[in-house]
Amino acid sequence: MSILESINSPDDLRGLTTDELQTLAEELRSFLIENVSRTGGHLASNLGAVELTLALHRVYDTSRDRLVFDVGHQSYVHKILTGRREQFDMLRRLGGLSGYPKPSESIHDAAIAGHASNSVSVALGMARARSLAHEDYSVVAVVGDGALTGGLAYEGLSDAGDSHEPLVVILNDNGMAIDSNVGGMAHRLSKMRVRPGYFKFKRWYRRVFGKVPALYNFNHRVKEWLKRRLIPGNLFSDLGFHYLGPVDGHDLVQLESVLSWAKELKMPVLVHVITQKGHGYPFAEQEPELYHGVDAFDADCGVYHGEHPGFSHVFGETLCTLAESDRRIVAVTAAMCSGTGLTDFASRYPDRFFDVGIAEGHAVAMAAGMAARGLIPVFAVYSSFLQRGYDMLIHDVSLSRQHVVFAVDRAGLVGRDGETHQGVFDVDYLCSVPHMAVLCPASFAELQEMLELACYHIDGPVAVRYPRGGEGDYKLSCGRSPAAVLRRGGDLTLVAYGTMINEALAAADVLSRLGVSAEVVKLNFINPLDTRPVLESLRRTGRLLVSEDVCAAGSVGSRLLAACAREGVLLRAAETLDLGTGIVEHGSVAELLHLRGVDRDGIVEAAKRMLDIDGNEVKAQ
Amino acid sequence: MSILESINSPDDLRGLTTDELQTLAEELRSFLIENVSRTGGHLASNLGAVELTLALHRVYDTSRDRLVFDVGHQSYVHKILTGRREQFDMLRRLGGLSGYPKPSESIHDAAIAGHASNSVSVALGMARARSLAHEDYSVVAVVGDGALTGGLAYEGLSDAGDSHEPLVVILNDNGMAIDSNVGGMAHRLSKMRVRPGYFKFKRWYRRVFGKVPALYNFNHRVKEWLKRRLIPGNLFSDLGFHYLGPVDGHDLVQLESVLSWAKELKMPVLVHVITQKGHGYPFAEQEPELYHGVDAFDADCGVYHGEHPGFSHVFGETLCTLAESDRRIVAVTAAMCSGTGLTDFASRYPDRFFDVGIAEGHAVAMAAGMAARGLIPVFAVYSSFLQRGYDMLIHDVSLSRQHVVFAVDRAGLVGRDGETHQGVFDVDYLCSVPHMAVLCPASFAELQEMLELACYHIDGPVAVRYPRGGEGDYKLSCGRSPAAVLRRGGDLTLVAYGTMINEALAAADVLSRLGVSAEVVKLNFINPLDTRPVLESLRRTGRLLVSEDVCAAGSVGSRLLAACAREGVLLRAAETLDLGTGIVEHGSVAELLHLRGVDRDGIVEAAKRMLDIDGNEVKAQ
Repeated sequence: MSILESINSPDDLRGLTTDELQTLAEELRSFLIENVSRTGGHLASNLGAVELTLALHRVYDTSRDRLVFDVGHQSYVHKILTGRREQFDMLRRLGGLSGYPKPSESIHDAAIAGHASNSVSVALGMARARSLAHEDYSVVAVVGDGALTGGLAYEGLSDAGDSHEPLVVILNDNGMAIDSNVGGMAHRLSKMRVRPGYFKFKRWYRRVFGKVPALYNFNHRVKEWLKRRLIPGNLFSDLGFHYLGPVDGHDLVQLESVLSWAKELKMPVLVHVITQKGHGYPFAEQEPELYHGVDAFDADCGVYHGEHPGFSHVFGETLCTLAESDRRIVAVTAAMCSGTGLTDFASRYPDRFFDVGIAEGHAVAMAAGMAARGLIPVFAVYSSFLQRGYDMLIHDVSLSRQHVVFAVDRAGLVGRDGETHQGVFDVDYLCSVPHMAVLCPASFAELQEMLELACYHIDGPVAVRYPRGGEGDYKLSCGRSPAAVLRRGGDLTLVAYGTMINEALAAADVLSRLGVSAEVVKLNFINPLDTRPVLESLRRTGRLLVSEDVCAAGSVGSRLLAACAREGVLLRAAETLDLGTGIVEHGSVAELLHLRGVDRDGIVEAAKRMLDIDGNEVKAQ
Repeated sequence: MSILESINSPDDLRGLTTDELQTLAEELRSFLIENVSRTGGHLASNLGAVELTLALHRVYDTSRDRLVFDVGHQSYVHKILTGRREQFDMLRRLGGLSGYPKPSESIHDAAIAGHASNSVSVALGMARARSLAHEDYSVVAVVGDGALTGGLAYEGLSDAGDSHEPLVVILNDNGMAIDSNVGGMAHRLSKMRVRPGYFKFKRWYRRVFGKVPALYNFNHRVKEWLKRRLIPGNLFSDLGFHYLGPVDGHDLVQLESVLSWAKELKMPVLVHVITQKGHGYPFAEQEPELYHGVDAFDADCGVYHGEHPGFSHVFGETLCTLAESDRRIVAVTAAMCSGTGLTDFASRYPDRFFDVGIAEGHAVAMAAGMAARGLIPVFAVYSSFLQRGYDMLIHDVSLSRQHVVFAVDRAGLVGRDGETHQGVFDVDYLCSVPHMAVLCPASFAELQEMLELACYHIDGPVAVRYPRGGEGDYKLSCGRSPAAVLRRGGDLTLVAYGTMINEALAAADVLSRLGVSAEVVKLNFINPLDTRPVLESLRRTGRLLVSEDVCAAGSVGSRLLAACAREGVLLRAAETLDLGTGIVEHGSVAELLHLRGVDRDGIVEAAKRMLDIDGNEVKAQ
């Protein structure tokens, strides 16, 4: 039996020797590679955090102490060690383990963590609650260097450093966020980071001088003084943190000793841990970015290198084409160069490519400044991450009607990343931004057409929203008109936008075999919303059926219903299918669409209810 | 004629001698005190920025160069010098000058600036556009030390420092934001700041050693080295800025020389300017916080000291009462202690009061951490500033359904601060946050009742939204039920919430004199929205008339219309009165409500249209 198989809770780690722990670290790496290559998930960051997580669980009791991860995709080892090892075959699958910490999954998970840079804030709140209640557990935040590029982390550090609260922030510094790190902070950290030789020197030094305490102490003080000179201007000390580090993040003994020390200091402490992303798996060490988040792959051969021909890829290609003939086109990303399909753009137009780090608010305001001076900035960003820029969308872009183009990727359900990543709020928040045009391509051809439309034929702010993954059966383009009737019918009006049109068309097929003739209206623009084509259809059919993969608040369905009431269009029946609160667990997109009743089958069922067709199961081909 | 009267554009500053400039500075201060005491507005920060603004206009040409203010309420002197002096009697009045920079008002205003911490981002965008177009104007951001507590500023500085773009950031450091500064950054700046004695020493030093260049240069290098030791770890240098300072912000000669120097350096430069908020007006020097934003006052006697008995005051009082009997209650503010009515709470419960600086996102996430560990955090925040926390509302509070109470102040129209400050988006964005309860008190009594309800009788996130200012004629409390019918009637159903109920009741009075009987339904909760009382009424009246002072997107009116269509309630007529896009200029609240047709008169007119009553003017008492 391996050591790993004997670890059913963190308590089982206590009795292990250093050698056993090192073996366990190797076993954990094999386990990660084996499982993630089968299920897909986040790999490189977890490989880098093996020793750190072991040390954390040796020093802290996460059933009492609160361990707050920042962007919790590096929490796999933590999950394995806290009794969830056997559920890893269901990682990120419907009903299985979440890929992120989740308090409802385990008492060991302190907080939800899918968006970056929040951990210090959350941990500080917990520490303050702890102190006010005169309780005595520890609170620890684990934050990557990438997350430090976000202003929220700085706000948290600034308040925490000033708070005098006992609180430990572990900076897991692997020298890169998802993509390579950018910004002044990255340069700063790289100065503070030291070569592996430093650690070797340190070990020798301790061995030689450790035997003579007085000499060691004197030398230690000299060394500390020298280090302060060599590592100029430590931001963390300046913000009020006691700074410990840098520490070799793959040296279990050193980690445990520094973490124990940090735990005893009753003040804000920052432990600077240097790790290697992908550590122990050569493929991932060499290309950590490629192994950040992966689909299933062959563990022996590594991950497929090509870009998947999805919407992101088509977006990147189209933007390159536009940029070729227009020097005003610039691309902005918030640490998601490859995820948003901009890798090619970045290498072809490096002077017009701006990666600002995990700083969506800044990206939006910066783009507003660019637009004010004649550029055509295109900010490619995931729907759920753009939530961070909501205020800047209104204040910096919209109030002065700047022509900024937002390429809103991962709009709608994203699937396995679960509730923190689903792009289900943007239809509401984008449409509330004054003057914001919102275009919804349903095919690659439409994305190309609408991106060109957004850049050149629409004033003010424009968002083009498209989903994760690729197109469906619908491959046409009718993207220049606000709406299009794709199929004529008299019994009900079926409305959808984006790739959800595939579900609507498939449902119309099924219904037609049941003798129901559905009119299918595809919306190309959802803001401003031209309700006339829908109302016109409804005046004939009298039945409205809308399906969309976003939250109910501000949904297009509710806006169409309001238009009916306003215009006096009497409906004999109406159903708006959507994702309710917008909180949707992890699973495949197809599973989730089905589970929430917004896919073909859900639409067919709703139509049958509306038309009062008997409940016999429909067999669809 | 005063010198000021001869300044009609910044060009008129060029020929002035130092003495004349100093006289002009005095005249500007008198002008500010005289005018702002009559019109109300921002005083202390403008008094502090007189010399800085003069120097900026001597060095830069703001018709070409781009001067980006951060929270532009310190832009009055800039407005005076750029041809708008004679419009100051209409400052912040309907149709008059805006209290903030506004590109549509003058070519000298580079960007809209009402929310803090965005200036470096916007300026960087402009600088990048300038460089890509091979143009050669300068870009300058003026940012207060308070705005540096916001993470957005840090994101901007980090990217700008790394950009190598020629760009000047002026840090106008008066040692306090609106309230005294907080957080690690404030401590850090206070270390970098030096006593006035330093400037005296510097002047003497330059006089003595300036005559012997070689000696001066040697000494200068020694001094710079010493300063680097004395001002440890300059964050700005570390982020990639060339740091110049600190500079005496009331020494015109020194300012002009440093600004000229900064302009010539073709790189990111930070000029650290020390100013005194309220400089030159003893009342304001002593209590700069009180003189930050003022109503009209007697310039000789100073501002009235008492707190105005508005909703903010009632909130603060009520929270103190709740906190007295429950140690779990804590208050959080983002640099708006006095504005949100928390001054008393802060002094009575200092250990349970948390001012996090201009860091709304952090405040939300921190409160989530507090709630997760058993506290009842109440975050008091202006509606338009909470936009910054939108993502954290969803990610940190709502997904794990934390019980955080949001006291959303300045909800609805705020009046004279204009478009950046109107609280017109929260009804949309709050209601899209999963599980968020939204309560709308219409009177002081209801605020008291609903705050207690929010703290103790509702699970998960709760927002209590209330306007700037005080209550109207409606002083009752019916705040425990989702909705209440305040007046019975059969001709139409009039719906409102919050203090807008006063307009609805007044309109019902007018209509009743016209022989129209309006049923008035007051909504107490708008999320979840219990539509039944309204639909029940509509089944009798058949006419829906809603009036609200928020943007149309996600409005309660549109949601009620959708409910009608969904429930098959046929309307003979419907009008939803709202603020359209949500962009509403400055003016008094009453003026703006009237102008936008959502006040009593607007409601009456809409009712007459709906009932097809002839257009004769209604004389209301």
